[in-house]
Amino acid sequence: MNPQLRGVIIPVATPFDAANDERIDQAALEYNFGLWGATGVAGFMVLGTNGEFKAVDDDESRTVIATAVANKGDKTLIAGAGRESTKTTIAFIRSLEPWADAIDYVSVLTPNYFAKLDDGPALADFYASVADASPVPVLLYVAPGYANGVTVPPKVLAELAGHPNIAGIKDTSPTMMTDYMVAAGSRDDFAVMAGSLSNIMTCLRFDGPGGVVSAANYLPDECARLTDLYFNESRETAGRYYRILQSVAKNGGGKQGVASLKAAMNIRGYRAGAPRRPLRPVSAEAESQIRRALETGLAELAAFQA
Amino acid sequence: MNPQLRGVIIPVATPFDAANDERIDQAALEYNFGLWGATGVAGFMVLGTNGEFKAVDDDESRTVIATAVANKGDKTLIAGAGRESTKTTIAFIRSLEPWADAIDYVSVLTPNYFAKLDDGPALADFYASVADASPVPVLLYVAPGYANGVTVPPKVLAELAGHPNIAGIKDTSPTMMTDYMVAAGSRDDFAVMAGSLSNIMTCLRFDGPGGVVSAANYLPDECARLTDLYFNESRETAGRYYRILQSVAKNGGGKQGVASLKAAMNIRGYRAGAPRRPLRPVSAEAESQIRRALETGLAELAAFQA
Amino acid sequence: MNPQLRGVIIPVATPFDAANDERIDQAALEYNFGLWGATGVAGFMVLGTNGEFKAVDDDESRTVIATAVANKGDKTLIAGAGRESTKTTIAFIRSLEPWADAIDYVSVLTPNYFAKLDDGPALADFYASVADASPVPVLLYVAPGYANGVTVPPKVLAELAGHPNIAGIKDTSPTMMTDYMVAAGSRDDFAVMAGSLSNIMTCLRFDGPGGVVSAANYLPDECARLTDLYFNESRETAGRYYRILQSVAKNGGGKQGVASLKAAMNIRGYRAGAPRRPLRPVSAEAESQIRRALETGLAELAAFQA
Amino acid sequence: MNPQLRGVIIPVATPFDAANDERIDQAALEYNFGLWGATGVAGFMVLGTNGEFKAVDDDESRTVIATAVANKGDKTLIAGAGRESTKTTIAFIRSLEPWADAIDYVSVLTPNYFAKLDDGPALADFYASVADASPVPVLLYVAPGYANGVTVPPKVLAELAGHPNIAGIKDTSPTMMTDYMVAAGSRDDFAVMAGSLSNIMTCLRFDGPGGVVSAANYLPDECARLTDLYFNESRETAGRYYRILQSVAKNGGGKQGVASLKAAMNIRGYRAGAPRRPLRPVSAEAESQIRRALETGLAELAAFQA
Repeated sequence: MNPQLRGVIIPVATPFDAANDERIDQAALEYNFGLWGATGVAGFMVLGTNGEFKAVDDDESRTVIATAVANKGDKTLIAGAGRESTKTTIAFIRSLEPWADAIDYVSVLTPNYFAKLDDGPALADFYASVADASPVPVLLYVAPGYANGVTVPPKVLAELAGHPNIAGIKDTSPTMMTDYMVAAGSRDDFAVMAGSLSNIMTCLRFDGPGGVVSAANYLPDECARLTDLYFNESRETAGRYYRILQSVAKNGGGKQGVASLKAAMNIRGYRAGAPRRPLRPVSAEAESQIRRALETGLAELAAFQA
Repeated sequence: MNPQLRGVIIPVATPFDAANDERIDQAALEYNFGLWGATGVAGFMVLGTNGEFKAVDDDESRTVIATAVANKGDKTLIAGAGRESTKTTIAFIRSLEPWADAIDYVSVLTPNYFAKLDDGPALADFYASVADASPVPVLLYVAPGYANGVTVPPKVLAELAGHPNIAGIKDTSPTMMTDYMVAAGSRDDFAVMAGSLSNIMTCLRFDGPGGVVSAANYLPDECARLTDLYFNESRETAGRYYRILQSVAKNGGGKQGVASLKAAMNIRGYRAGAPRRPLRPVSAEAESQIRRALETGLAELAAFQA
Repeated sequence: MNPQLRGVIIPVATPFDAANDERIDQAALEYNFGLWGATGVAGFMVLGTNGEFKAVDDDESRTVIATAVANKGDKTLIAGAGRESTKTTIAFIRSLEPWADAIDYVSVLTPNYFAKLDDGPALADFYASVADASPVPVLLYVAPGYANGVTVPPKVLAELAGHPNIAGIKDTSPTMMTDYMVAAGSRDDFAVMAGSLSNIMTCLRFDGPGGVVSAANYLPDECARLTDLYFNESRETAGRYYRILQSVAKNGGGKQGVASLKAAMNIRGYRAGAPRRPLRPVSAEAESQIRRALETGLAELAAFQA
Repeated sequence: MNPQLRGVIIPVATPFDAANDERIDQAALEYNFGLWGATGVAGFMVLGTNGEFKAVDDDESRTVIATAVANKGDKTLIAGAGRESTKTTIAFIRSLEPWADAIDYVSVLTPNYFAKLDDGPALADFYASVADASPVPVLLYVAPGYANGVTVPPKVLAELAGHPNIAGIKDTSPTMMTDYMVAAGSRDDFAVMAGSLSNIMTCLRFDGPGGVVSAANYLPDECARLTDLYFNESRETAGRYYRILQSVAKNGGGKQGVASLKAAMNIRGYRAGAPRRPLRPVSAEAESQIRRALETGLAELAAFQA
């Protein structure tokens, strides 16, 4: 198992100035990295779904990446880099050259505007072309709820798993994880990672490394404890802990996507600011509910006895 | 009824160099405008779905728009300008300032990465903010098959139909047309347009203006005849003609999205080049089928007696 | 246009005893027919979706049909008769022999348990076999929201429209109406009917006969007025009336399916009893909302000036 | 873990006479039981999806059950008994009284005609009422692909798992298995079973008992070997074997549902006859493909070295 991806990765939220969402609050981002650096998480993924990568432009994206490079310490760094066409994806990845040594992986979401075409060979060619051109190893990113229903067919994954510059797949689909485990086959350094808390237990039960967990933005050590329990205690203990963590994550920051994630971060002392429009901050009432859910949930997590 | 939108609009395909899909073939685009200018279509929509707007970058987009402005003649021009965030959408529209006098409308696809949030007020705020900032009138663009299932709720449309800088909606959904007709209410200059051949008869039967028809890229006069028949002959005659046209469009260029559209254009003497990767050109076999379908179909259309 | 199907048909609710939902309340059903007989509706459809045909057994079904035959007066009568297999469908229809003279049509829902197979020829064979065996003309019934997503493909309809014992199609899909209009072609006595208020205006605008409207259970004359306005006044007037009627139907009895339909009927003086379990009656709060919506709505409908 | 449900259960196909699909071929059914009795499967489930339970009437259902009771030997017997209403489900289960001692469980599919209502409490009341009335323990049956998308919400399962006469859940959904594992909680004798090969590895990896596997109709020992390997060898070995078995099942009998299942059975020496209309037998070409796939697949399975 690839040690760089073992455990929990934070899908870093991009802080926007609450008074002016057109501005990335870079000081806030640095501040958050400072807090996360002292925790047990394995690494960071910037410019993913929770990083609102679709809402920022290419210059802003590079600013976020530069900040992550400067603040990641010795933890793993994944940079989101998917675009809709082969040309624009490669162009963006090439523009990351100045930070290539510090970026461990680029994560590339499935193109999806022409989802209806459902063209496996086109997807295979896309990823192979991107991996050929990328100075850093590539992770596939499957998120059908955001990507117009597109997933990577297991057959295509089986083919791509042989590419030396493709290192794994981050799966946020509700159903594909076990098929990807099968398709990845015997290549031990190929990572099939969970893209959310909802499928991380499946990943672990099938001997996978862990995953990217949005709640780790505001509960980094609490999330890291889950994989610790699984790897070092027992799967039953991890299973019991998971039920509590999942409930806290759901009610604490998971109800309204990035908006509630940022509210939970702000409550927990991180500086997340507001989401970028058209996303809207949560209501004051929702914020109170999140605050209460976090209080109760943290007490439950602290009381958990392995 | 707004006379600028009455009839058939071509959703202009963006020609890429077949040998190097990273290059827009501008001469080809100019050539196509030259042919279209002499036909009965009402206007052009550049950088829509068929214009592969998601596959090109902002500089390329402005090149396409500049070309359209220089070659549109006295026909209506709509420029696709949707982005995922309020900031990036407005920024792009503002960058079109040099051509603002010549662009009749910008068309703005629903943001959709966070489709799951299904947040009507956010969508209303997005469109109102964009319309406030835009130097040209805005058309909403609803295309759930491409946009992760997102549509504009009729309630939101009813609200936005009151905005002086929102001129209409282009609907490519399978089901919303009649609801949009109701929601647009009594504002006579608000256009509820069909976004494809599949719902244009519904649009016309409910007294709408017509629509954007991808087959008009390669059959401009044949498509324009449909609305002529409806407005000037009878709805029954138009209905009979429609059945033939729909069958030609489906088999002639509609089987594989932009790839088959471009194949049909090339067969018909336009210069469409290839789609940009990851989209792939159609196979030689599919091209032969398209060629045969067009031959048969054109004969049937020519033989049609009003 | 087939005069028997022109206008509004009531999809008759099956009254169950509120104290014991295992018992059909036949006196209540007779009472309701008595009230409906004096209204402007064109006819009745028993044992459809709103008749909870899936919740009753074959003996109960025949009891409902016998009651309808005895109480329908000179109005049109349609009997729901769909089952999942060709054998069981034909067996049930044959068991209606004693009432064959009084039943104008049987309505047969698409079989759908094996929806995934999506087998057009199987569907064509099913309907042709049923029509061959049925002593009364057959109406196809398309309701994908209830039938696991199954619809009749337009190609199959085009084929079935030539069968002498298939008289039409009742469409409750959100999208197929206009395709069915096209597929039915030139056979004037083939009825493409709306299966709900939501697509009745599309049906009428395309020169169809009207449809089956659940709100007609509790607002028979108000619903019948819609088609009267369309046929005898103007489509614009009917369109304005429709917006009011649709709103009343939605809030008055359409919020919770059969449960709210029955609540609205009871409020309006019909005897609907309760739905059969697992369906549950609406809450007291929901009932109050329905009552208020009906009061307001009836006043608006009464105030409408053609 | 409940020993009666540990391993692989055959979802018994109901043989219809190939010359007259209106007739159940009882001698064929007895013959098949004779072959299955000598294999390593744990038991039988009659009148499930593969048993075409929706296509037969109640009398025919009881005939199938009586045959199963007479031929099951000492293996576990599950009888499919779901109907759409509480009344009709209980009535059918009560009619099984004569065989109650020999039936180990009844399996009850979620009612689903009113799927849109999505009413958890109604579903909870339905299952509790059925379990209260049933003389044998009840298994919930979740199959959204056949049941209009309906699943049992995990919250409802958590509640029902406390009912003394509800013994487990058979899950054929693509996504719910792990949630059901969590929801079932600590009740050791509550079985969360896989309803198909596609989720059986997930079931096993989460310490579940195994499941109902349609391919076991024609490959009983080959399917039983999978759970043997998992329980008695290692999960890695079982995983490798699974990949082969899954491929054989998919190409051997899984391509066209019951039709291809029956073709595979007939090829393998069972007597399955034809599916009941509107289902149709596979084409001669498809049958040849199935034959070849089985030949190749059986050789691969035989060559597998633990």
